[in-house]
Amino acid sequence: MAISIGELAVQFGCELRGDPDTCVDHVATLAGADARALSFLANPRYKSQLAQTAAGAVVLDKASAAECPTAALICQNPHATYARIAAVLHPRPHGPAGVHASAVVAESARIDPTAHIGPSCVIGERVVIGPRTYVGPHCVLEDEVTLAEDIYLAARVTLCRAVQVGARTIMQPGAVVGGDGFGFASEQRRWVKVPQVGTVRIGPDVEIGSNTTIDRGAVEDTIIEEGVKLDNLIMIAHNVRVGAHTAIAALTGISGSTTIGKRCQIAGEVAIGGHLTICDDVVFLGTTMVSHSITEPGVYSSGIPLEKATVWRRMVARFKRLDRLEARIKKLEGDTAPAPQNQEEDDD
Amino acid sequence: MAISIGELAVQFGCELRGDPDTCVDHVATLAGADARALSFLANPRYKSQLAQTAAGAVVLDKASAAECPTAALICQNPHATYARIAAVLHPRPHGPAGVHASAVVAESARIDPTAHIGPSCVIGERVVIGPRTYVGPHCVLEDEVTLAEDIYLAARVTLCRAVQVGARTIMQPGAVVGGDGFGFASEQRRWVKVPQVGTVRIGPDVEIGSNTTIDRGAVEDTIIEEGVKLDNLIMIAHNVRVGAHTAIAALTGISGSTTIGKRCQIAGEVAIGGHLTICDDVVFLGTTMVSHSITEPGVYSSGIPLEKATVWRRMVARFKRLDRLEARIKKLEGDTAPAPQNQEEDDD
Amino acid sequence: MAISIGELAVQFGCELRGDPDTCVDHVATLAGADARALSFLANPRYKSQLAQTAAGAVVLDKASAAECPTAALICQNPHATYARIAAVLHPRPHGPAGVHASAVVAESARIDPTAHIGPSCVIGERVVIGPRTYVGPHCVLEDEVTLAEDIYLAARVTLCRAVQVGARTIMQPGAVVGGDGFGFASEQRRWVKVPQVGTVRIGPDVEIGSNTTIDRGAVEDTIIEEGVKLDNLIMIAHNVRVGAHTAIAALTGISGSTTIGKRCQIAGEVAIGGHLTICDDVVFLGTTMVSHSITEPGVYSSGIPLEKATVWRRMVARFKRLDRLEARIKKLEGDTAPAPQNQEEDDD
Repeated sequence: MAISIGELAVQFGCELRGDPDTCVDHVATLAGADARALSFLANPRYKSQLAQTAAGAVVLDKASAAECPTAALICQNPHATYARIAAVLHPRPHGPAGVHASAVVAESARIDPTAHIGPSCVIGERVVIGPRTYVGPHCVLEDEVTLAEDIYLAARVTLCRAVQVGARTIMQPGAVVGGDGFGFASEQRRWVKVPQVGTVRIGPDVEIGSNTTIDRGAVEDTIIEEGVKLDNLIMIAHNVRVGAHTAIAALTGISGSTTIGKRCQIAGEVAIGGHLTICDDVVFLGTTMVSHSITEPGVYSSGIPLEKATVWRRMVARFKRLDRLEARIKKLEGDTAPAPQNQEEDDD
Repeated sequence: MAISIGELAVQFGCELRGDPDTCVDHVATLAGADARALSFLANPRYKSQLAQTAAGAVVLDKASAAECPTAALICQNPHATYARIAAVLHPRPHGPAGVHASAVVAESARIDPTAHIGPSCVIGERVVIGPRTYVGPHCVLEDEVTLAEDIYLAARVTLCRAVQVGARTIMQPGAVVGGDGFGFASEQRRWVKVPQVGTVRIGPDVEIGSNTTIDRGAVEDTIIEEGVKLDNLIMIAHNVRVGAHTAIAALTGISGSTTIGKRCQIAGEVAIGGHLTICDDVVFLGTTMVSHSITEPGVYSSGIPLEKATVWRRMVARFKRLDRLEARIKKLEGDTAPAPQNQEEDDD
Repeated sequence: MAISIGELAVQFGCELRGDPDTCVDHVATLAGADARALSFLANPRYKSQLAQTAAGAVVLDKASAAECPTAALICQNPHATYARIAAVLHPRPHGPAGVHASAVVAESARIDPTAHIGPSCVIGERVVIGPRTYVGPHCVLEDEVTLAEDIYLAARVTLCRAVQVGARTIMQPGAVVGGDGFGFASEQRRWVKVPQVGTVRIGPDVEIGSNTTIDRGAVEDTIIEEGVKLDNLIMIAHNVRVGAHTAIAALTGISGSTTIGKRCQIAGEVAIGGHLTICDDVVFLGTTMVSHSITEPGVYSSGIPLEKATVWRRMVARFKRLDRLEARIKKLEGDTAPAPQNQEEDDD
């Protein structure tokens, strides 16, 4: 879709430098752009590419505008403005309204006539699907699932019994919402399955990545609040609550009954224990192990950057004999000074 | 489904305090329960909620019974008894016997007439499916898969060629059992695929979580023994054997040809190396890296709890210059005492 | 399929010791083999089993041939030769040419008549599928996907819009290629979705494991070069490039815009940060955290092997009070020698 940059400036509140009749029809990187492309500069990492860009126009902030060799759309937040323009130039494909002939739909399901139900979908009893919602091919919606309006389930999404999803939420292929939580009672060294009778409630404007799994609650519900963004291959266990506008990167796991605050940023491969409370505005860096509750906003970490393996093995060996190092210091202290107080073992 | 607590007491061998005619029809938490709800107290964490509960009845142990303000079902193991009662109050939905019209079933498959085969399932040649087994929508069973009785495949489960599954085993959506193991021969710095000709044998009473993957054996079979419980997004590599009644939490990976003992408890994001043997009754705490075999039951760990990132960076920096600290101690020892024996480098 | 070892020796360039008319029809381990089985010895771990083997023939190298009690196929690289022979004895099942009646295929798709499209597949507009390519049951190929020849998509693989796949590439069940990258602009502490308009290009001879996810590029493409082998449950983020013949084990994640070199070997549960460049021929051991670019080939690590939890907790406690240890050394140095230079805090 082609659009003039004059129209974009008006629609997105940008200051325009350049010919308003210049048309763009796709987005590109600064380095890869041609005269029909819109590009942007948000990350200073790419600033060196600005002077050479052949883009039709660049979205950027006032401070960078002077260095732009082509038309400029100047705004306060170039990344967000670029995102909105890109959505105009590259609209998400949307299937036709109606139910594909190969879908299997229960008689009691109520599907808005503007919704799209793709090939081979299975829609259970009493499911409700709102206006303009897109249910891509091979989605399975078990009984009593409720989808609000303008939802986008890309393909092969499974929503188990009674899962509720808010407006404009997007799910990538392979996501599973509402599988049984991992709940077992121990009895004579065997496991007795605890029925998982809660469900999952997902707010509006959420995004759920490919093959991510969110388990249903054991008794009450697992809750994902509005605006939460979940990357791929994330595990959200039963009875977790993730606070509004929190973003979580891939391969992170949150154990059962933990509450994550609002606006947290959780990097990849983070491991968060069960029954914890993490306050608002917490950042966990990659691979952090979260074993206790956090009450103070801030950045937390427990990951150790790599070394050459030969160097690393010696470091680990030293680490593992720190007790001997401590003993040697104690001995030195005994030799040179009054005996220090015994260093207590902190065994927690 | 409504049932009197008198009947529950008889059926599950509990001592009853309260009116046996009180009826309950669902489960709830102590805090969230109403007069028609059955609740339970197993975790002391929730004891403070007992005094205020409005539940119709509470399952608990003798020690807590005196503090229960409502009817009590007293037993030795409240969690296990609750689990069994919950399964009566909330029976798992089960589709009708027979094969859905949209399923594609090979002529040579033998499906018990009491089994349920859901919409869009694909059932290969010589597949055998036992009595009362539930194959949910979109399951794919490749040739020669064998399912015993009372199995429950929730939805979208893939069982590759010749996988065998024992009675009463449950699989959550998206599980893949029997994909090719990750086996390649190195040749002139390229990889030659090694055909994976074994399969996967899964015992009875196993549970497999959403999007978990279990690879088929390279030559012999990958084996999951009876009663094993696997959470979501777990990776079990080829030729692994997981011992009976072991439970494994999400995002844990077990590398090829490793044997895990019986009744182990493995937390989330644990990384277990290949060709290891872990004995019975081992516990691995979250994020543990298991790089050698374990011969002694017990609790093992290698995870480091988080710190504020500013503090953590200093800790890591100190850790990485432990060699300098050691050199300074050695120097001090030289100054104050006879030279100590050279501290050997433990490079393993 | 039965074949004489004389024929195998000719076909795979082995030196034969034993009766060329001996026939084998399957592969087995040295310990599990019978007279109709071909076995192999590549890993010295299994050498002790050679003397007792009942195999019809064993593939091994010259150095081990003297100890072989049965017919021997002698070659330089027994593992690779075994792999090729196993592929002859156990050919991958391949469905009939043509499109299954239950598949939903867009009119504009061009499918080679020798390709197989399985039950319930969904094939979008302008999709191109090459000769002899196998698209297993329940695969979803969105619009404009291109598959070259001899590809094998086992089952339930999702390829999103415009994904390109090279010849002979294999994908295991549940793989998702081309889901949206995790791209959001921050605006007033909320997230604005950045459309992901790139796609994924996958070279020839690649293997992608079960439930692994590869995200489409934000603007340009995510690229997996020829011969790359990806295990299960791996996350490849948007705009990553993985170099030719690199192998990556399960549960590893690579963050956005990172480039991995050729012939790297990356173990399981490794976490690789974003915008990094890893040179060719790098090895990362299991659970390594990669937080900066690597310019020198070699083996890198940051994983710490486990200990008994009681011992481990004391180690962590000591680690966390290294500052106090350092202070005590400084004090000793003050007592015994001229004041040392202040040890700067390395806060990076």
